[in-house]
Amino acid sequence: MGIVVQKFGGSSVADVEKIKNVARRVVATKLEGKSVVVVVSALGDTTDKLVELARQISASPPEREMDMLLATGEQQSVALLAMAIYELGREAISFTGYQVGIVTDNSHTKARIVDVKSERILQELEDGKIVIVAGFQGVTVDNDITTLGRGGSDTTAVALAAGLKAEKCEIYTDVEGVFTADPRIVPDALLVSEITYEEMLEMAATGAKVLQLRSVEYARNSGVIIHVRSSFTDGVGTVVKEEDEGMERPIISGVTHDTSEGKITIYGVPDRPGIAAKVFRPLAAANVNVDMIVQNVSYEGFTDISFTLNLDDLPRAVSIIENIAKELGARGHDCEKGIAKVAIIGAGMKSHPGVAAEMFDVLANNGINIQMISTSPIKIACVIDAKNVEIAVRSLHEHFQLSEEAVTSEVL
Amino acid sequence: MGIVVQKFGGSSVADVEKIKNVARRVVATKLEGKSVVVVVSALGDTTDKLVELARQISASPPEREMDMLLATGEQQSVALLAMAIYELGREAISFTGYQVGIVTDNSHTKARIVDVKSERILQELEDGKIVIVAGFQGVTVDNDITTLGRGGSDTTAVALAAGLKAEKCEIYTDVEGVFTADPRIVPDALLVSEITYEEMLEMAATGAKVLQLRSVEYARNSGVIIHVRSSFTDGVGTVVKEEDEGMERPIISGVTHDTSEGKITIYGVPDRPGIAAKVFRPLAAANVNVDMIVQNVSYEGFTDISFTLNLDDLPRAVSIIENIAKELGARGHDCEKGIAKVAIIGAGMKSHPGVAAEMFDVLANNGINIQMISTSPIKIACVIDAKNVEIAVRSLHEHFQLSEEAVTSEVL
Repeated sequence: MGIVVQKFGGSSVADVEKIKNVARRVVATKLEGKSVVVVVSALGDTTDKLVELARQISASPPEREMDMLLATGEQQSVALLAMAIYELGREAISFTGYQVGIVTDNSHTKARIVDVKSERILQELEDGKIVIVAGFQGVTVDNDITTLGRGGSDTTAVALAAGLKAEKCEIYTDVEGVFTADPRIVPDALLVSEITYEEMLEMAATGAKVLQLRSVEYARNSGVIIHVRSSFTDGVGTVVKEEDEGMERPIISGVTHDTSEGKITIYGVPDRPGIAAKVFRPLAAANVNVDMIVQNVSYEGFTDISFTLNLDDLPRAVSIIENIAKELGARGHDCEKGIAKVAIIGAGMKSHPGVAAEMFDVLANNGINIQMISTSPIKIACVIDAKNVEIAVRSLHEHFQLSEEAVTSEVL
Repeated sequence: MGIVVQKFGGSSVADVEKIKNVARRVVATKLEGKSVVVVVSALGDTTDKLVELARQISASPPEREMDMLLATGEQQSVALLAMAIYELGREAISFTGYQVGIVTDNSHTKARIVDVKSERILQELEDGKIVIVAGFQGVTVDNDITTLGRGGSDTTAVALAAGLKAEKCEIYTDVEGVFTADPRIVPDALLVSEITYEEMLEMAATGAKVLQLRSVEYARNSGVIIHVRSSFTDGVGTVVKEEDEGMERPIISGVTHDTSEGKITIYGVPDRPGIAAKVFRPLAAANVNVDMIVQNVSYEGFTDISFTLNLDDLPRAVSIIENIAKELGARGHDCEKGIAKVAIIGAGMKSHPGVAAEMFDVLANNGINIQMISTSPIKIACVIDAKNVEIAVRSLHEHFQLSEEAVTSEVL
């Protein structure tokens, strides 16, 4: 019997009525003859409320204890969903991450899954039960509770789908799927019905909130096909999968933006081999995720290094950088919050040179200054002033004709 | 280094300020050179709120899922208390029932502790940490989460004290200790500074809310001395311990009452050997706790059986009794909610005959009809109409002179 993994985010289980809706959807899948494994996030804004409670006690609570606290949100959801399924006359059983053996490393608050034990789940599925697993959480080999970072329930779902060799991994969310741009900024943005792992990775990395970056990585590495769908409608959604031979891709699949990052610059660093490592090794050790890095050419033996990182990590990173800047004999350092990243992503870009130049033109024509540039074979990202982000996204979306259904065939 | 177990109830950790107070108290004990293990209940009315949430989904949620849900309350408390202790500059580590190996049987929502593994706690104490354990919860041998019933955190604390061979088990609560009667009904009730396990057991069984009955049983069986104290004051509290040779006890230590029970009567049961077993075996199988049982003498081959039980279990018990009454060929059955139990308890009663008669006199003089009587060597309990409970408690308290400090020496 085929196994289907269905994941429902916090907004899909925000209140009792919505939990009952999810129960109905899950039972409907069960009645189609599938073995169903459900992954659920915490109810609505539970996680935010718990974070706020912790902040009232401590400005920087120990991360192990933070995980202990936050993991309760998902544990509540799974129990409530199991009850709602029982009310519909079907058997269900809920599990914490620990109970089903979602083993992670020790990086509290952003742990990575290292193993998924599937025995208990398979046994309960065999007994005809709907299995409900708490998303977002795992357990270390020492039995300490960990969490996987914001959006971590997506990764739980993908990891379970991989471990159980599920035929489908459906991620239900409060949007219809992946769009060519954020519809709140670009009202005529279109739904993307199919996208490659690589495009989705670049989109997630540059601001698309639909899927957690790590879940896409995990899906790519394990070959799990993700189907992003709306909890509230029956739309077609977006399928995320391997690029296959016959799959022509548009040059540009979407425009993304991200205003959740800040920028740190170290000025006048004596240019010697190994300075980049000296800067970034302590940041990595402190579990600070650095995004874009730019080092300009050396001028009279000195260089500047800039990098972007999540605003949450900024205070921690600044205090580390202060010491490093001194140690390296740098002239100074600076941190900036009001930046935005805007990016264009498309697998078709690989075979179409000149796309970057077009993007820079569009930004220039709108009087937008580019502070940093980062490229990959299927992405061009620019850091700009946060105040220009909406106009940048709209003009790029328009320039690359992403509102026109015909764009795919144009490329063919 | 001596180990002290300190338990704080839900009202002691009802909000952020109270959590910080508990942290200060715990750290003070640590600074006295003790190894401290803290057991905490869920914050304030968290458990009630979770129960209400579950009821919105299901009138009778599966008990396994109820335990899954309710266990989150304590998990939140332990994490928050650990954070508060870190803020005071001391190291702490929080654990769920599972993580420290509080193993229980499978009776969800009222599980019994069968084993306590102490390795992990001892190791963390050795490392100088304050160990915080979630009360009220455990785990079965199959890794399913269980809860120990209302007040179960008391039992967690006693079980840990026993397992760790702690020198003290302090139960902090929102009252000053055990009183000669409920001070809300008898304003001049006195604090009892010392009480035997047996008296405390009878008090808990007949309505005193200070300690969970099972925690007192556990303490008696394992020889753990319990010190009940107020979280908010520095009062002397009540010590619960073995009756020792030189310990003279007053005839009556206290008057208790309980309005949380209902009564079921089966009328006109053909009086044959084995009928009581036929009635009570199925109730036990359904995990219904029956309290008092009265069977009157047979009249013309028929008898009546009455018993009391918690109001929560009443609907379940009635549906079981309906079938049994039919099966036994009984004339009928009846269930009553408006009853109260009032009891007098005292270890000194053993050597003073006539106390029961005095109690019946007091009730009669107040025009109160006795529906059921149950006695033990140190307790006399009567079921009366709920509307008479306050006058009964007050007149018994007055008759046995429990407001007079001199009562103990009078007995000596």
